[in-house]
Amino acid sequence: MGSVYGQAFRISTFGESHGGGVGVVVDGCPPRLALDVAEIQKDLDRRRPGQSVLTTPRQEADRVEILSGVFEGRTLGTPIGLLVRNQDARPSAYEEMRDVYRPSHADFTTEAKYGIRNWQGGGRASARETIGRVAAGAIARKLLRTLAGIEVLAWVSRVQGIDSKVDPERVSLAQVEANDVRCPDAAAAEQMFALIDAVRRRGDSVGGVVECVARGVPAGLGEPVFDKLEADLAKALISLPAAKGFEIGSGFAGTALTGSEHNDPFVADPSGRTRTTSNRSGGIQGGISNGESILLRVAFKPTATVRIAQQTVNRAGEAVVLEAGGDTIRACCRARCRWSRRWSA
Amino acid sequence: MGSVYGQAFRISTFGESHGGGVGVVVDGCPPRLALDVAEIQKDLDRRRPGQSVLTTPRQEADRVEILSGVFEGRTLGTPIGLLVRNQDARPSAYEEMRDVYRPSHADFTTEAKYGIRNWQGGGRASARETIGRVAAGAIARKLLRTLAGIEVLAWVSRVQGIDSKVDPERVSLAQVEANDVRCPDAAAAEQMFALIDAVRRRGDSVGGVVECVARGVPAGLGEPVFDKLEADLAKALISLPAAKGFEIGSGFAGTALTGSEHNDPFVADPSGRTRTTSNRSGGIQGGISNGESILLRVAFKPTATVRIAQQTVNRAGEAVVLEAGGDTIRACCRARCRWSRRWSA
Amino acid sequence: MGSVYGQAFRISTFGESHGGGVGVVVDGCPPRLALDVAEIQKDLDRRRPGQSVLTTPRQEADRVEILSGVFEGRTLGTPIGLLVRNQDARPSAYEEMRDVYRPSHADFTTEAKYGIRNWQGGGRASARETIGRVAAGAIARKLLRTLAGIEVLAWVSRVQGIDSKVDPERVSLAQVEANDVRCPDAAAAEQMFALIDAVRRRGDSVGGVVECVARGVPAGLGEPVFDKLEADLAKALISLPAAKGFEIGSGFAGTALTGSEHNDPFVADPSGRTRTTSNRSGGIQGGISNGESILLRVAFKPTATVRIAQQTVNRAGEAVVLEAGGDTIRACCRARCRWSRRWSA
Amino acid sequence: MGSVYGQAFRISTFGESHGGGVGVVVDGCPPRLALDVAEIQKDLDRRRPGQSVLTTPRQEADRVEILSGVFEGRTLGTPIGLLVRNQDARPSAYEEMRDVYRPSHADFTTEAKYGIRNWQGGGRASARETIGRVAAGAIARKLLRTLAGIEVLAWVSRVQGIDSKVDPERVSLAQVEANDVRCPDAAAAEQMFALIDAVRRRGDSVGGVVECVARGVPAGLGEPVFDKLEADLAKALISLPAAKGFEIGSGFAGTALTGSEHNDPFVADPSGRTRTTSNRSGGIQGGISNGESILLRVAFKPTATVRIAQQTVNRAGEAVVLEAGGDTIRACCRARCRWSRRWSA
Repeated sequence: MGSVYGQAFRISTFGESHGGGVGVVVDGCPPRLALDVAEIQKDLDRRRPGQSVLTTPRQEADRVEILSGVFEGRTLGTPIGLLVRNQDARPSAYEEMRDVYRPSHADFTTEAKYGIRNWQGGGRASARETIGRVAAGAIARKLLRTLAGIEVLAWVSRVQGIDSKVDPERVSLAQVEANDVRCPDAAAAEQMFALIDAVRRRGDSVGGVVECVARGVPAGLGEPVFDKLEADLAKALISLPAAKGFEIGSGFAGTALTGSEHNDPFVADPSGRTRTTSNRSGGIQGGISNGESILLRVAFKPTATVRIAQQTVNRAGEAVVLEAGGDTIRACCRARCRWSRRWSA
Repeated sequence: MGSVYGQAFRISTFGESHGGGVGVVVDGCPPRLALDVAEIQKDLDRRRPGQSVLTTPRQEADRVEILSGVFEGRTLGTPIGLLVRNQDARPSAYEEMRDVYRPSHADFTTEAKYGIRNWQGGGRASARETIGRVAAGAIARKLLRTLAGIEVLAWVSRVQGIDSKVDPERVSLAQVEANDVRCPDAAAAEQMFALIDAVRRRGDSVGGVVECVARGVPAGLGEPVFDKLEADLAKALISLPAAKGFEIGSGFAGTALTGSEHNDPFVADPSGRTRTTSNRSGGIQGGISNGESILLRVAFKPTATVRIAQQTVNRAGEAVVLEAGGDTIRACCRARCRWSRRWSA
Repeated sequence: MGSVYGQAFRISTFGESHGGGVGVVVDGCPPRLALDVAEIQKDLDRRRPGQSVLTTPRQEADRVEILSGVFEGRTLGTPIGLLVRNQDARPSAYEEMRDVYRPSHADFTTEAKYGIRNWQGGGRASARETIGRVAAGAIARKLLRTLAGIEVLAWVSRVQGIDSKVDPERVSLAQVEANDVRCPDAAAAEQMFALIDAVRRRGDSVGGVVECVARGVPAGLGEPVFDKLEADLAKALISLPAAKGFEIGSGFAGTALTGSEHNDPFVADPSGRTRTTSNRSGGIQGGISNGESILLRVAFKPTATVRIAQQTVNRAGEAVVLEAGGDTIRACCRARCRWSRRWSA
Repeated sequence: MGSVYGQAFRISTFGESHGGGVGVVVDGCPPRLALDVAEIQKDLDRRRPGQSVLTTPRQEADRVEILSGVFEGRTLGTPIGLLVRNQDARPSAYEEMRDVYRPSHADFTTEAKYGIRNWQGGGRASARETIGRVAAGAIARKLLRTLAGIEVLAWVSRVQGIDSKVDPERVSLAQVEANDVRCPDAAAAEQMFALIDAVRRRGDSVGGVVECVARGVPAGLGEPVFDKLEADLAKALISLPAAKGFEIGSGFAGTALTGSEHNDPFVADPSGRTRTTSNRSGGIQGGISNGESILLRVAFKPTATVRIAQQTVNRAGEAVVLEAGGDTIRACCRARCRWSRRWSA
């Protein structure tokens, strides 16, 4: 369980990286929203790996099909079923993973929980799982824009030690799309590209921070005390593969300020609307949107898949060294090698 | 809505800072758990303000009463109703807040959402709301310890710029309780105390970071893909008043490492159990616990209540200056004073 | 678990028949609804036993207290906590029930499920549990009336073999309240009273059917396919103690008709609104309200508490005869007496 | 919303009668259950129309495909996606339904709620929606049988006035499958067949009662007070298309008995297990299973689709007569014809 998310707009995703396909059922999308498969496809194309030298070489068309819920170009108010077939199934490529736990992947925990695992890839823990999220997200984003004028935009804000300078109030999708890194600060993006490429060439990986803004959010959204707006955002974003940290507004940096420095002064704008002159709250106060832009950041750890030798164990508890490219090189008797020092100390 | 949380162990909290009382109904607590009101009271006593010079002066006994669900000292498996009466109601103390929005409090957003507000204090946005969480948490913690041997412990890890050194695998409740700051690093705690006290004396406030460990967690907990263990923890913790950031394991710092540095090598311990030699994953991989300690951190912004003059507006949209102690000093015509420069630029 | 109900208007009830008290937390009541404790008390007074010779002699004031969620006579949009203290705790009266399972009560199943039971009465299975429902229902009914002009009314339609004639489109609360049976057909009510009283005098009990109408319901309510309006009504009503059957519209009798007889013809009323000329659908078609009155019936089995000797067993599996008034008279060895014939056959 | 059902075993169905397809995502099926597509297909074949002269002539293969969640013949514990393509799309056959509301169908209420409707058939209100339920049900039934030894079986118990005699404790699937009516009482089935066929020939339809038994249910299932076992069953069954009534155990007939007649005496069976000598409770007491067979009945109204002239209106509010076979014959001005007498009275 755990593949259903949301209340009013409820999504139910399914699918492993290998097998028939991946997809989502969206329950609760309002009726009469104009919706074309091309709009969803566009976001899936953005998600698809293999678009630059930087990402995984997996090549898949990822064509989405609308199975239900849309009639004559408009939503019916009924569940919208979306399906993307898997095409690049190469079980043999993963044959060696059948019994070995890749470090910091979900191989071990999946077996610990379910006692079974689709070893032909990452299964449900594969980033391919996000296809369902992206497809449903394309609909959600259109809905927010159409019904409420809300615009949601995200970009790469940091890669390892390289930071960018981006104004969340003005950044545009075109700026995000201007380079392969998807960092709208061109100078930083160039450095990031060089870093990712260099690390990639030596078989390693890097992590980074993604920043997201929602502009045009009306005041009043969020359901205290448990379903505060930032709490629901935290859950949704931390549930993404590889996410390790979440910040709303000032985040961890805000703890360096005093209250008088941190508080956002209220002021009435010329139209009489209550606004704040700063936005350390990140657009949310007391769990409810205050009408300012919502600002959040998510930390993603470096990708666990590396082409560098790593120590691990197999299902039998035998020590195994994973070589570059994931090839297993040897198994040695357990509890004797240096990796076991921790336990013999 | 938004005051119900959890699936198997479901809590429903209620209560404003002023009014009859605050409390919680716990639905789903297993039957036959030995439970005494004193165990719950103990945690409420830890929560209660007024225990040191550092906290708010509000003095309340906060005596909890078990209304249902416990019979002859054991839980029945039925809902456990818990009630704490409000005692320190001083509406006059808040009279001036009736029409003024305190900066970075929930006054404005509450009115924007509900069109009504219990102005006699923070209402539902008051930290007093956490009484229900603490009371239910006392039961949850006992349950985890009794049924699964899981031990949960949290402490102040950082106050503004002062960091502490604490070993999450060994720290004890006694060490946490050793000082008023609740930081188990005695030297750091002393500095923190001095800082908090100094800031407090000049009417300001500070924020900080709380760290939490869960030890003895079995492998296999968590429900991918949306109800991953860290996602549920993120939601629960970010829903706390003043929480602005959440990290699991390596968190934001983990983005500075490469994949080969970040991955936690697997090894079999002498008993054959699969373990990791490092714990940058924070005890969770692919959304499922891996048997290592769960490590997380939460950033809390500095308390919004300060005794320093602040600019704000009232319900009529008039500029107002809140003086030390929260006293309103004057209202000036809107859109003319310097605070409005942002809008006239 | 199982004591939370509803989505937008979510209630969480608690409390056993004996112990501190019973009550409910209502989460999701809209803000700014005028609400007085007297309005809730009125419905609890209607529920309270001991109002006529026909009901259980338990005498309780059942005074309700609003703990939260209401401020200056209006709802805040926050959880409304409601508490009714238990007063009539006479554990000794139930002492003999400590180890004996009363037939068709929940004593046995409660122990089978939880392994523990508050034997001082029916515990959570007592009809006293409905106090939380009635209190929350008083708010729900006011909400429906105030916001949507919906009027909900229920009455006793049948007692054992005695049927009544009531026009659901015109019956009023005053007519329902006109007699102790709460059957608005005065002639039938008189017969029912005589029957109930006669059965009661010989220590036995009767069941019956309650009919309910909701008038003024707008078209469009209900969420197919699982949360169809009649499905949610069925769940809510069958969850009442002693409920054994549910009908919407034509119900079981509708199966005697052909399709052409059963279908409700559509017609436009003078204002152009689409109406039906009959209402065998009971106001719901395809799980969605059609604007006609919602009509439903619930069958309640005869009360399980009788003052007539009954065969049962105790926790040790020994045969026991419960005498009039619930007094245990003897235990005989198991698998030998005539009651065990079923098993020895 | 409303297309997600269940807690531990959660299903999310999708699909209109016309369009890409219908299906279901099952979230929460335990891992390592042997599952073959043929097992699901078998139940879909039972559901499929066109198997006898009695049902609708729609001919569809209804081949199910497993999209995810099953690996090497066993469930993974991840969501199981199931898809059945629509094949028999004949929009022209429904062209005339574009603007006309068929009596006692969901055409009107769907438009009232959503403002849009897939007029190429019943859309989401079509019985075709049950494909997702049947497919998920096939898995659920196997799960219950495999893990708990529970056997679930249903049959036609009554058609219009014709009742059957079936022993729910002994009836077998083979007996149910022995005739086209699926009534295991052969003599009654013959009468039912003749009745249905005769009614069908004159363009009309009949309703009836389906009875269901669950054998081998352990004591202790059900979650009072709202999620009582019978309440969840009532909701699930009343949510079926055309269901108008639900009974558990004695149901409505039970109201004719006194308490002393209705109560099920407890007795210990030779093994010491607590049993009842009668089963008017229908296997559930206080909302919790008591170990006896669960017995329930569901009333289905006569199918709304008839080939007999019927009065109705179109979207413009004009009176329309639907002829045999659903052909519209004429529209007359509104508020004038005899059908409107109700409003002019």
